[in-house]
Parts: sequence; structure tokens; C-alpha cells
Amino acid sequence: MGSSVNSKPKVIKGPAGYVLEDVPHFSDYIPELPTHSNPLQDNPAYSVVKQYFVHVDDSVPQKIIAHKDSPRGVHFRRAGPRQRVYYDADEVQAAIVTCGGLCPGLNTVIRELVCGLNNMYGVKKVMGINGGYKGFYAHNTIALTPKSVNDIHKRGGTVLGSSRGGHDTTKIVDSIQDRGINQVYIIGGDGTQRGASRIFEEVRRRGLKVAVVGIPKTIDNDIPVIDKSFGFDTAVEEAQRAINAAHVEAESIENGIGVVKLMGRYSGFIAMYATLASRDVDCCLIPESPFYMEGPGGLLEFVERRLKENGHMVIVVAEGAGQELVSESMQSMAKQDASGNKLLQDVGLWMSQQIKDHFAKLKTMTINLKYIDPTYMIRAVPSNASDNVYCTLLAQSAVHGAMAGYTGFTCGLVNGRQTYIPFYRITEGQNKVVITDRMWARLLSSTNQPSFIIHKSDTAEEHKEEQPLELPK
Amino acid sequence: MGSSVNSKPKVIKGPAGYVLEDVPHFSDYIPELPTHSNPLQDNPAYSVVKQYFVHVDDSVPQKIIAHKDSPRGVHFRRAGPRQRVYYDADEVQAAIVTCGGLCPGLNTVIRELVCGLNNMYGVKKVMGINGGYKGFYAHNTIALTPKSVNDIHKRGGTVLGSSRGGHDTTKIVDSIQDRGINQVYIIGGDGTQRGASRIFEEVRRRGLKVAVVGIPKTIDNDIPVIDKSFGFDTAVEEAQRAINAAHVEAESIENGIGVVKLMGRYSGFIAMYATLASRDVDCCLIPESPFYMEGPGGLLEFVERRLKENGHMVIVVAEGAGQELVSESMQSMAKQDASGNKLLQDVGLWMSQQIKDHFAKLKTMTINLKYIDPTYMIRAVPSNASDNVYCTLLAQSAVHGAMAGYTGFTCGLVNGRQTYIPFYRITEGQNKVVITDRMWARLLSSTNQPSFIIHKSDTAEEHKEEQPLELPK
Amino acid sequence: MGSSVNSKPKVIKGPAGYVLEDVPHFSDYIPELPTHSNPLQDNPAYSVVKQYFVHVDDSVPQKIIAHKDSPRGVHFRRAGPRQRVYYDADEVQAAIVTCGGLCPGLNTVIRELVCGLNNMYGVKKVMGINGGYKGFYAHNTIALTPKSVNDIHKRGGTVLGSSRGGHDTTKIVDSIQDRGINQVYIIGGDGTQRGASRIFEEVRRRGLKVAVVGIPKTIDNDIPVIDKSFGFDTAVEEAQRAINAAHVEAESIENGIGVVKLMGRYSGFIAMYATLASRDVDCCLIPESPFYMEGPGGLLEFVERRLKENGHMVIVVAEGAGQELVSESMQSMAKQDASGNKLLQDVGLWMSQQIKDHFAKLKTMTINLKYIDPTYMIRAVPSNASDNVYCTLLAQSAVHGAMAGYTGFTCGLVNGRQTYIPFYRITEGQNKVVITDRMWARLLSSTNQPSFIIHKSDTAEEHKEEQPLELPK
Amino acid sequence: MGSSVNSKPKVIKGPAGYVLEDVPHFSDYIPELPTHSNPLQDNPAYSVVKQYFVHVDDSVPQKIIAHKDSPRGVHFRRAGPRQRVYYDADEVQAAIVTCGGLCPGLNTVIRELVCGLNNMYGVKKVMGINGGYKGFYAHNTIALTPKSVNDIHKRGGTVLGSSRGGHDTTKIVDSIQDRGINQVYIIGGDGTQRGASRIFEEVRRRGLKVAVVGIPKTIDNDIPVIDKSFGFDTAVEEAQRAINAAHVEAESIENGIGVVKLMGRYSGFIAMYATLASRDVDCCLIPESPFYMEGPGGLLEFVERRLKENGHMVIVVAEGAGQELVSESMQSMAKQDASGNKLLQDVGLWMSQQIKDHFAKLKTMTINLKYIDPTYMIRAVPSNASDNVYCTLLAQSAVHGAMAGYTGFTCGLVNGRQTYIPFYRITEGQNKVVITDRMWARLLSSTNQPSFIIHKSDTAEEHKEEQPLELPK
Repeated sequence: MGSSVNSKPKVIKGPAGYVLEDVPHFSDYIPELPTHSNPLQDNPAYSVVKQYFVHVDDSVPQKIIAHKDSPRGVHFRRAGPRQRVYYDADEVQAAIVTCGGLCPGLNTVIRELVCGLNNMYGVKKVMGINGGYKGFYAHNTIALTPKSVNDIHKRGGTVLGSSRGGHDTTKIVDSIQDRGINQVYIIGGDGTQRGASRIFEEVRRRGLKVAVVGIPKTIDNDIPVIDKSFGFDTAVEEAQRAINAAHVEAESIENGIGVVKLMGRYSGFIAMYATLASRDVDCCLIPESPFYMEGPGGLLEFVERRLKENGHMVIVVAEGAGQELVSESMQSMAKQDASGNKLLQDVGLWMSQQIKDHFAKLKTMTINLKYIDPTYMIRAVPSNASDNVYCTLLAQSAVHGAMAGYTGFTCGLVNGRQTYIPFYRITEGQNKVVITDRMWARLLSSTNQPSFIIHKSDTAEEHKEEQPLELPK
Repeated sequence: MGSSVNSKPKVIKGPAGYVLEDVPHFSDYIPELPTHSNPLQDNPAYSVVKQYFVHVDDSVPQKIIAHKDSPRGVHFRRAGPRQRVYYDADEVQAAIVTCGGLCPGLNTVIRELVCGLNNMYGVKKVMGINGGYKGFYAHNTIALTPKSVNDIHKRGGTVLGSSRGGHDTTKIVDSIQDRGINQVYIIGGDGTQRGASRIFEEVRRRGLKVAVVGIPKTIDNDIPVIDKSFGFDTAVEEAQRAINAAHVEAESIENGIGVVKLMGRYSGFIAMYATLASRDVDCCLIPESPFYMEGPGGLLEFVERRLKENGHMVIVVAEGAGQELVSESMQSMAKQDASGNKLLQDVGLWMSQQIKDHFAKLKTMTINLKYIDPTYMIRAVPSNASDNVYCTLLAQSAVHGAMAGYTGFTCGLVNGRQTYIPFYRITEGQNKVVITDRMWARLLSSTNQPSFIIHKSDTAEEHKEEQPLELPK
Repeated sequence: MGSSVNSKPKVIKGPAGYVLEDVPHFSDYIPELPTHSNPLQDNPAYSVVKQYFVHVDDSVPQKIIAHKDSPRGVHFRRAGPRQRVYYDADEVQAAIVTCGGLCPGLNTVIRELVCGLNNMYGVKKVMGINGGYKGFYAHNTIALTPKSVNDIHKRGGTVLGSSRGGHDTTKIVDSIQDRGINQVYIIGGDGTQRGASRIFEEVRRRGLKVAVVGIPKTIDNDIPVIDKSFGFDTAVEEAQRAINAAHVEAESIENGIGVVKLMGRYSGFIAMYATLASRDVDCCLIPESPFYMEGPGGLLEFVERRLKENGHMVIVVAEGAGQELVSESMQSMAKQDASGNKLLQDVGLWMSQQIKDHFAKLKTMTINLKYIDPTYMIRAVPSNASDNVYCTLLAQSAVHGAMAGYTGFTCGLVNGRQTYIPFYRITEGQNKVVITDRMWARLLSSTNQPSFIIHKSDTAEEHKEEQPLELPK
Repeated sequence: MGSSVNSKPKVIKGPAGYVLEDVPHFSDYIPELPTHSNPLQDNPAYSVVKQYFVHVDDSVPQKIIAHKDSPRGVHFRRAGPRQRVYYDADEVQAAIVTCGGLCPGLNTVIRELVCGLNNMYGVKKVMGINGGYKGFYAHNTIALTPKSVNDIHKRGGTVLGSSRGGHDTTKIVDSIQDRGINQVYIIGGDGTQRGASRIFEEVRRRGLKVAVVGIPKTIDNDIPVIDKSFGFDTAVEEAQRAINAAHVEAESIENGIGVVKLMGRYSGFIAMYATLASRDVDCCLIPESPFYMEGPGGLLEFVERRLKENGHMVIVVAEGAGQELVSESMQSMAKQDASGNKLLQDVGLWMSQQIKDHFAKLKTMTINLKYIDPTYMIRAVPSNASDNVYCTLLAQSAVHGAMAGYTGFTCGLVNGRQTYIPFYRITEGQNKVVITDRMWARLLSSTNQPSFIIHKSDTAEEHKEEQPLELPK
């Protein structure tokens, strides 16, 4: 149940194994709130739309691969506008905050929150919190209007600024009360969503009519439940550029090795997808799949073999891959605590050095290794068209949810549908590449890299949607 | 049941309203075919993958928005490798053909069919049919190997060439028999898939063990059932560039109007998504939403008003929009059948001329209209990273299906899952923008354009996943 | 002597055939103006720079190919800062105006004029004239500051807006006087420079201390004397994209023809350079080189032959090419003056129609022609890095010149050096591709297109830097 | 006189201080060679070109800023076709080799050498040497034809491969003789050109009719005499992308610092131009301009101040900047020779570490530093349009020179004209940013960075084209 210890999950069960993991609502803890008819009903743009409002019972299944008689399983509430809203337009004072590292699409989400509130619900008062969570109490806020955000989606970064690290939940909720904020949109990764969950619990404890809405941001795609995080497509696109450059460099020189480090502290999705998309990679290393350098079946042996076969190779390594190897190697250097060694905590630099040292010792082969770390070039690009559309729908879903009185939830795409997911499902773990799953097998088959797994234990890893072996016909 | 008059749909029903619309299989019409164990079992890349094979009962629902007690509805067979295959690797002679207009990703699909057959199943004999369907009997074929297709995904177009127009099903099946082809991969739009259906029927009539597999290609996204066609993301990305240019041109001059024509003969998806992604559009016109030029509520009035308000505007028009207006206008010119008039069948040129003529007559306002038609620049770009990954999975699904003895099907993504869909579902109609649906409302709300619908009739249009009105709480 | 009838050219002669075509200076018509020491002398950035100021006698030769004893020829005054300036920083009221069509780099020039005036000379008062020449008297002006222009170079278009067409010199100079403007920076093509010349003459006639400075803008590169106009590199880069798309389209279909229309009403430089840069073009048609469609040696014959040889081809046509053919063809349609025919005044549409009609009549060959007109996509892109640097130096040269009391001149790069050129040299003719020159021969040799010149007359065209035939050794 | 000790410079003097630094010719050391008329005379592409051949006396001045009576100075021979050639087409056996690091445009130069030889002179035999100089004796060669090189200009890298390091001149010339090579085109940097010079001397010593032609390649632009090296424009363009990303990262977080390392071991041109082009840089550090970290006027103080003023900053550092600081710092670590320290020889990593350590010690300010090293992404991109045209002309000039019997020269653009330059002028030094020149002052003025120069010595650095102080009027 994650970090939200105060409120209980709202779980609704139905026939045939149907389960709805619902999200909190003002009506759970504030009695007799007045409601208003949704102003979208009078919006000329929506006048031609039949059945615009989401049915109260609409839900989206988490697992959709079905057998004739399989149980229906967990569902999430479908996002979208409701016929009754819990705010009058003039009453709303919304606040938007962005936390953590950069990700393509942040500005689009900000823009569409502001425009969605304004165009759909007539909300005029939206403020931006500067510099992440701390900004609630440490910085001035800025007013956000459709005009002021009009072009920001064409720029990378976040116009609100961001920050990492600790913050004080009580001071944040104090600030929310003091400033009269009654809708908070929090854009950030799993740590940020945990913070949002704590803010929601405190808001609820105080009995405030303040919608606390999370919008999941993770360039690494490591947030569970949701299909894909915004900015991911853009990141993979940019990552391909680096891989392509590494390939050109490697090909142009005898025993050329291109090493590309990509984002992914805990999850290798960017590395995996960029490898699958670019097709120029000989070995892709991710946090989920342990590997080793030395000895038979090790990376160095593979590098040697591949160079002998092809004359060049490209290695993609996610930043979180091989952390245990790096730590081990660091410890052996510990006595000589030179400042340069800190750099070797970067797996890309460390691995490049290891490969160079290996072949320098070997002496029979002169290699030419080129190391590329495109991390900060990838994070800073503006979002591409498909991420722009995604961010727009995500922001609009967030706005619809808040206006309808839902709170304490994260918006997210589940099987292609916008849903509201309770915080505890987002923060309870990390989405990871399932290396016993087919996507990783596809990658292995495309790179022909070693599996590095000699005595892989039998413990079944959590994997989504995979079914028992098909029986022979 | 579309054009496939000979074979009956295979429909399987289950409890709670479960329906499986299954695809044909060799065993339907050829008794006692030998099977082999799937060679993937011995592939080191897959040795770590548990449960690699798709369960025989796995299916994917077409509609996933669920209520507690809603019926389960139509499902399609899940794509993926099966434990038993119906071909020995050496026995396979595969053929690939591309038909119709260009679309980003064609070369990636070709590449991944060749590499998938080779790497996963050890198939060495793959031929490319040159120049579309006619190539089966009118041109030489070319051998396709992993080496020869290695870099083609970085180029736009199709290395096999393409063609439009008629072809002779009998001659094609004769050629299939004569050349010893036993797997045919047909990449093309709805017309092409109808042709594939006819080829399948003829193959089945002759009792041949030839898998006929369709891979849906449509830059317009107008193929029904599937989530999205390959190349669509790339096309929307490129379309944004044209819109952005139109915006810059319009903004830089008094009463500047930028008109951008985008693809979409019957479906306005590219226009709609590019408009949603770019945010610089004042009016988006698509085939699904009729409009009119003259009089109150007409486009010309809107143009005038928007120019007065903002000083500039951008119009996006899908190629199939307003066809009835264009025809009408053409008829009135019929007597003077000048060759230049043919050009006015192009709605972009026609509309630009209409707007210019209107303001020339008006005399009170000098406009500056710039017309951009990026169609052929969009179609010819290489696919972006997300389309590359999509094309890879699509091609691999096609190969798995054919190897497992399925035939007479189209591969397609349904709710994010690869499935096998019977031809008749793909060819029975067109996917269209549902203008009474929320996506179009989102667009209207972002552009604030007129609805052009005064007395919209009440006939309920087919719309996906929309539910009855939510009742007030 | 062009249109500047009032003031006489300042020509200074020296030994060995040295000629300096100098530019006007305040001291020519206003006696005893006070001067100030150049504030750059106290600028820390320049404190390390020796010999920062340009020598009073520095000049740049127009022709630099030299023989041992060839005469030295025409020179222009070298641009750059002078030791004495004719304005006090606080006294300056600068105005910037952009006229004519868009061109990559306009915003960079505006930015660098503002920043150059501010950073180098401490000038705070810079206004932007909105909407071209007419803006002097028909629109409000806007204040331009380093902050307000900080990011504009990353956008295409012009933040000042532009316009074409007539203007009233007297009203402009009245406005200049009324607003207290004493430096006018005029960015525009040859028509605009002629206007600038008239403004200068009127300013001089009234005896005003107002520097009138032209900055030559022409995406077509058709301004004489200067090496290259800003935005040209960017335009050629973008033009390549269209050519590449046309090539991909043409290659992917039997008898595929890609036709690309590029800018160039009077000069085919963009078409020529894009053809040389891309290498995928079979035929490049420019205004300077007449061609014909029908009969032996004509374009249609060449198209037929090339299709038979290669199966596809790409034609690049500059907008001003073949105008006499188009007019002729229009006249024959004159009686049936349909509005569609206006479109055929566009040489790209006209030629595409001609080719289609020809092969439709021929019946032996079905062609597939794709027409691309990227004009407005090219004009609207932001300038690339090399154009950004070029625009920066151009703007700084303009500022140095105005501060030093020069007036009635255009800035321009001559043989790689920034110079001040008298207006009459810029407006006296057009820079054109010299088709008897080597650059065009290089193109012909790369495309192998027909010369279309059967009885080329002997009239020697003006051509730069070409020398008499080398004698045999 | 550089490394070419054997042959004497050919210097021709004329009136008014005219000096021609000529290049060697076969006729200098092989008497009575037969000549042929240039086949271009019969080429239809050139039939319309008058005066196609370069006059025997054409030369290009190295310095062009002129005074009325200044001496004419050093000239180089103008490149281009001559009326008589020293080879019969069938006799030519050309070889092309690429050496050193990657640079955008290598493949374009290779393509245009092959196509130029073939299309202009009918030369069919062109071989590519694999893997740099060593390839002459250590690898197989490959045949290069117009067809095989047709698309290579669209790819980065070099299809011939490259290598660095030592080679054996005697073995190379042996191989040249053994393989019957009589034209050698050597593409590479200053070290490579020195090697070419030695090969030429040995060829001349042996009296061989082998043209040895250098084509200068240096992404750093550090080759003297020539205007600009090919690939430089493309490199600056790409470098801007990294700077832009650093700017976005820095802006999005409190006290954000973006550090971008760019190429430039000895010359800071890329850093300087990318800084001038992008305008987002607060400090640009190059090898030519010493700086220091600590104390008043040092970099750390500047960083602190800029962060306090603006909240973020971007530093661009050329790889060769501050080498003496890095070495010093390395020495102090020497005792603890950890492998990580090697990484600190990279000035970008070293400086980033220094800044982080400084602010960690300072404790009053938490900074967020993001380091980007785009080096290998820049080197590997394909050349842009303007570099493509440049490479084409360069390659054609090389071919014309070799065919005309010139040898022992490097091709190069001088004041916008293609010339032949004797090897010793190319290898005698390095082109460097002259920090007492105006371009650097422009940069300083745009960044407002400290000059780091307290007691700048008075020694006059060599600087091109700068003239004595202008006297007051």
C-alpha cells in the first residue's frame, strides 16, 4: 500500500473477478459539497459531441489478454469529463509544480494544464510554483495564462524550473492553504508522486477541498502500471542519433568500439528501445540484466570476438547497468581516494576504461574506443509530435479529474486509455524491463549478444501479460 | 463480410458475451499437415525467456472500456510465436510485396520480415516482388538477405518499388505456384488487403499450403480495427514542420494566411493530430466534417473575423475535405474545360483560390496567402524511432503467424497488443475521425473554429468506446 | 548609376589602376560635425585587441584573381569600427525595418543590430518599425531591447513583420524627422534598397544627420557585388530535403518523376546549389538558361530518355525558369479565362501538367509524377549556424558604419570581407547565374542534362572573374 | 620551410611587390612529357562555357585588404582545369586515402574525386586505400566507381576507413610503384599533409610521374592559409545543438551550470563560432586564450558572480584549453596514480570536477552542473549542403591539378577562390584564433566573460589582415 498509510484503498468488486481500484474523491471526506453542471455542456466546440461525458461506471482493465473464461481482473477508473463538477470556475485557484530531472514534454504538460483549465472550464487563476516542491515556500510564484504559455511547448526544459531533494510536506500544505490554492498539479517521478501522496494525506487530514493530482514524469519509463511515460518516444528518437554516431565512428576505424551511455538508473527501457529502433548495436546492457566483464562468456571476451568477426562494434549501456561491478571496482581503489575516481562511478566511463585497459594489457589488438554520453542532450529537446498529443490528453485528463472532485490520484495511460490511478499503485515499485519476457528476447535476437546468465535462478520475476506455455495441438 | 465471399468467418463464442473472431488456418482446409517444434526453443537469445510462446487461448478484446457487468464482446487472436510450426526452415520460400503509395516504415517492415524469418526461424529464401502486385508476373524478383536489407530502414520509400491499380489474382496465384512461394507478405492499404483476401481465397480454393499475410499500410490511418498504422507518428511529426512554417509566414505579414494541405482522402487523422500537436492552427478541415465557404457561419466569414482579431491565421485542410464543394465548383466551370481547372480538384489549391478571390472582391482587406502542400515530403521520410519499433513487432508477428500455419489474416495492433485479424474486418469499412467523439471536440476547443454544423442530423454515427451519458450523482 | 540621381558617386583613384568606389559620409554635406572617441576603446572585451580599428585606407578589391601585372581594379571601403564616431550614445535613436519576403536570418540581423548598438556603443533607444516601409507612417513602433530580442534568432520569420509594395518616401522621411530617428537600418532586397536610396537622397536633400544603412536580404542570392546573401546557406540546406523526398518518391515507383520547384525569380542560385549539394537531380532549370519542351533536344524528349534508362528522374525548376514558355502557353488559353489557369502561371504546376499531358497523349508509358513546392517551408526556417554568424557580422558592420558617420550604403561581404557598398552598385542590376561560367558547367556535368542551347548567341554575358583562355604551354 | 627539405620552394616575383608561391610540376623534374588536349573541350556540358580554362597566370592574393599603394604580396596559383593535361584517361590509376579523425564531408570528397575523375576526364581506374596510410601496404584496396560511391555523401564517416599514427614512407612509395598508381589523393590534417609532403619528396627523388595531392581535412579549422576547412560549418551547426541543450538544462534548475566541451586541440575555432552562432554562452575557453581558475578574475569567481546575477550559466570549453592547468593539477595527484585520474586529462571532466569541488567546499551555494561532450556526435554527422558544395569544388580542383601535371600541393580555398598551395605553407604552423583580433573581441563582447589577461605581454602575435590604427580624421 506504499507510503499512504492514512487512507485506505477504495476497492470495488464485481462479477467474474472484476476489481476496480478506485481513487479518492472529495465526497469521501467532505460531506454535502455543492456541485455544478459541467460548463463543457455550453461550449460550442462540444455541442456536436454526443455522449461527451464519461459514464460513471467506465473502467479500464489492467490486463487485457483474455481467455474465453479468464477472470476480469483489476480495473482503473476511466479519465474524462463528468457531468457534474465540484468547482465554480471563479473559485478555482490552481497551482502547477514540476519536480526532478528534465524530460521532453514538461512544457507541453504545463501549457495544456493552463489552456485546459481556461478553455474547457473557464478557470483564470493558475499559478506556477518555481523550482520544484521547495518553491511552495521558498520562492515567488508566477501567474500562468494561455498567452504566457502559448509557445512554451516548442522549447525543451521546464519554464517553472525544477529541483531535486527534500521538502517539507507541512510547509507545502501550509502554503497551499495560505495562498488559497485548491487544485495542485504535481508533475514528477516516483519520488515526487510519493511526495504528492503525502501532501494528499495531509490535505485530507486537514479536511481541505484541495484536489491533489499527480502527473507521472519519468524519462526512464520506470513508473509502473502506465503504458509509457511522456517524453519517452522523444528520448528514444534522440538516443538513436547517438547510437548512429557511435556506429559511424566505430565503422570508420580498425577495431573501432562505440560506447553509448543512455539514461536508465533502474530500468533499461530507453536503452532497449533505442537498440531495437536503431539496429546498429552489438550489445545492450541494462540494470535488469546482470553481466560480467572477465572470463568466458564475459563482456571482454565478447568484444574481442565481435571485433575479430566484424572489425567494429557498438555497445549501449544504461546508466544503472552493472552497478555492482562498478562498486566492487571502486572499493578496490578505495585506499587511493583520488578525485578522478569519482568519475568512474559513471558506468560508461568505467566500462570504457576497463575495455581500454584490457586491450592495452592484451597487446595483440589495438582498439579505438569512442565514448558518447548524450544524456543531457536527450533530456533537453522539445517533445516530438506524438509526445505533444500525449501530454495534451494527459493534462486534460488531470483537469477533468480535479474538476470532478477526484483527488489523490495520478493520471496515466493504461492500455491506450486515460485513467485515474491511486497513488499507492504508482509508488509501490518500479516498472522494469522483464528480461524473461519477449521484448528482451527480441533484443537479444537482434544483437546476438551473450545472455551473461549461466546459472540464472528460477525465481519467477513479475512479468506483465505473459501466459503459461501453449500446449501442443 | 467484405469481399471474401468464399470462406466463412470463424467465430467462437464464450461465456459473458465473449466472442473470438478467429483467422483461417492451414488445418481448416488441408488435413494432416506435419508440424515441427518451434526452432526458437533452441535459440540462445530465447533461452532465458520463460513462457515465450503465446497461449493457444490468448485473445485481445476490441473494446476495453468495461463496466462491472458489461458483456466481454469481440476479441482477436493474440499474435506471437507458437510452440509448433507448420514449416521446416528449408522448406520456406517467402515473398514480400509492397503496394500503393509511400509511407514511412515500409523499408523497416521489409527489413524485419527478412531478418525475422532468418534470425528467428532460419529461413534463408526470401524474395522481393518488384513494383507491387503486378510484379508477381511482370517483373523479375530480387533475393533479400539480412545483409542486403541491413541499412534500408534508414531510407525512406520502399526498396521493392510499388504500384497502384489493377492486377490479376489468377496470374498472381499462378506465379506463386510456379515460383514455389509458400509464404506471401503483402504490405498495403485497404485496396491491397482486399486483393490479399482474393489471393487467399484463390490459394485456399486450390488447396495450397501458402500463408497469405497482410500487413496494413496507410499513412492516413484509415484502416479500421487497428490502433494506429505504421508511419503515422512519423507523418504527424513531419506535418508539424509544414504547419510551423505556415504559422511563421502568416505571422510575419499583415493579414497573413497560411494554408497547409495534409494527407487524408477519407480520414482526417493526420490533419487532426498534427493540429493537436502543433497548436498553431486556427481551423482544421477534414473529410468527416462538412463545411461551407459562403454566408454566415461559413469559412470565409471565419477567416475575415480571425484576421481582424489576430492579424493572421493558419488553416489545415485534409486532401479529402470539402470534396462536394470542389465538385460543385468544378461543374460550374465545366463548359470552359481548361486544363488549369484540373488543378482545382486539389482542395488546397481550390480553397486558396476561393479565399483570394473572396478578398479580392471584398476590396476592404488585402490578404497574403501562402499555400504549402508537404504531402510528398512527408511520405518520403524514413520512419522515426517509435515507428521503427512498431514495424519490427508487426513484421515479427506476421512471421510468427505464417510459421504457425495461420493464413488469410492481417497483423494489427489492437489496444496495444499485436493480433491477427481476419481480412474481412480490415476491408469492410474505413477508420474515420468520429466528429461526435471527444478527440474532435478537443481539437475544436483548441482551435475555436466554427462547427459548420447548423442542423446536424441525429443519426448516431458509429463511434468507438463512447458510453451513455453519465447520470448526475 | 542606378536610381540615385541626386548625389554623385564618390570615386577615388590610385596607382596601378586602383579604384575605390566610396560611400557617402555626413561630412560630405554637413560641415563641422563634432566627433567622439569610439567607446569601444574603453570596453574591457576589446582591451586585449590590438589594432581594433579599421585603417582609414583599408579597402577590398572586387576582383581578386590577379596576374603579375594586372590592374588593381575596383575596391570597396572595408567595414568595421572607426576611432572617431559621429554620435554620442545617448543621442542615437535607431530604427529597424524589414521589407519584402521572408528569409532565414531576419531575426538574427534584428537581434544583432539591437545588441550591437547596445553592447558596443551603449545605444539604448532602438525602435522596430512594424510591417515594412509603410510602418513608418501607418503603424505603431515597438521598442527593441537586448532582452526583448534575446531569443528571436531561434525562430523563423521576422518579429517586426514585413510587407511588399509601394510606399511614400516623403512620408517616411517626415516620420523619421518627427520621431527623431537618426539611424535607419533597412533590411530588404533590391527593391527595398532602391527605396533606401531614395530615402537617403531625401534625407540628404533636407540636410539631416540621419544615417541610412541598407542590409541586403535576398533568399535568391540575386543581389550583385556581394559574395552571398544571408539565409542562402540555410535555404539550400532545406531545399535539399525537398529534393531528397522527390528522389525517394521517384525511385519507389515505375517511371516515377519528382518535380521540385525552388525559389529564384530571376536567378537560379538556390536551384543550382541545391542540385550540386544533393546529387539526386537529373535536370535543373533556371531563369538564366532558356529551355524548350517539345521536339528534339527538348525537355520532354529528355524525360522520356532518362525514364527509359533509369526508370525514374528528378527535375528541379526555379520559379522564374521558362517564363516565356509559360506566357506563351497562357496566351493560347486566354480565350477561356478560367480561374484555374492562373495556377498555371506557376512554372512548377505548369510543367508538371505539360509532362503529364505529354505522356497521357503518348500512351506508351505511364508515368507517376509527384510535385513538391517547398518554397514557404524553406523561407520560414530559422537560420543555421553559419548564417547566424554571417548575420552577426553584417549587423555589426552596419552599426560601425552608421556610428562612424557613413550613410547611403549597403553592407556586404565582398571576397570574404565586410564592406560598405554605395547603393547604386547594389541596385544597378541583378546577380545571376552565369551560364557560360564554370559553376554551371559543373552542374551540367553532374546532371548530364541537355544544354537546350542550339544556336546560342555570342553576346558576352557579364561574368565575374573569368579570364581569357589559357594559352597552350 | 617545414619538413620538405629536398625540394626548393618555387617563388616567382612581379612588380609592385607581387609574389607567387608556386607549386611543383612534373615538368620540374621529368623532361619532355607528352601532353594531351583537355577532354573537357569535347564535353557537351562545357560546350556552352566560354573561357572554361584557367589562365596560366591566374593567381589569388593571400591578403586582400588593400590601400591605394600597398604592396601586392603573396599569391597562390588559381585552381581549375588547364587546356593541356599530362595524362591520357586510360593511363590514370588513381588512389584515394583518408587519414586521421572523422570529419563531416569525407565521403563527399571521396565521391567527388571518383565522379570528377570519371565524368570530367574519363578516368575509370580509381582505388580506395583502406584504413589510412598503413593501408597502402597492410590492407587490400577496393575499386571505387561512380556507382559504388553514389550515395555515400549522405552518410557520416569515411567508407575507406581511417587510422592514426606512424607509417613508412618508403613502403608507401614502393606500393605506389608496385600497384602502378600515378595519382594519389591524400585527405587528412596537418600530420597527414606532412606525410604527403614526404611521399611527394620520395616520389620526386625516384623521378616518378605520380601526382601527390593533399586535400586538407581538419574539423578544428587549424590548417593555416586556407579560409576554412570542409566540415567546419557542419560541425559548428551540430555544436550549437549541444550548447542549446546545456542552456535548457542550466535554465531549468537553480544555479544550473551547463559545461560543453567542443573539439579544438590547438585552435578554438569551433568553440568560438558555435558561441557566436548560439548566443547562449556565458564563457568560452579556447587554447589560444589562457585562463585561470582561482582567485580574483579567475573562472570560479566569474561562475559565482554569473550564477548570482542570472541563476544559471553555460560554459563552452575547447578540448585544448587550459592544458597547463590540467597538467599542473595532474602532477599534484601523481603519487596516487589511480586509473580514474586519467579521465581528468579531459579538460571538460576536469573543469566540471573543479567547479563542483569548489562549490562543495564553499557550501553557500548548491550548484547543478551538467556536462556535455558532443565530440563524437559532431564528427560523425553527414556534411550539410554548404559543405557538400565545398567538398565538390575541392575535389574537382584536386583532380584538375593532378591532370594538369601539378604535384606536391594541397588544394585550398583562399579568399573564396580555389587554389594550389605548396605543402610547406600548410605544414609550417597552425591556424589559430588570434585573440588580439576582432573576431575574438566580438565573442568577448557577446559573452561579457573576463579577459583572464592581467599582464598580457606586448609580443605581437601573427594576425591576418589587421592594419595599423586608423588616424583621427
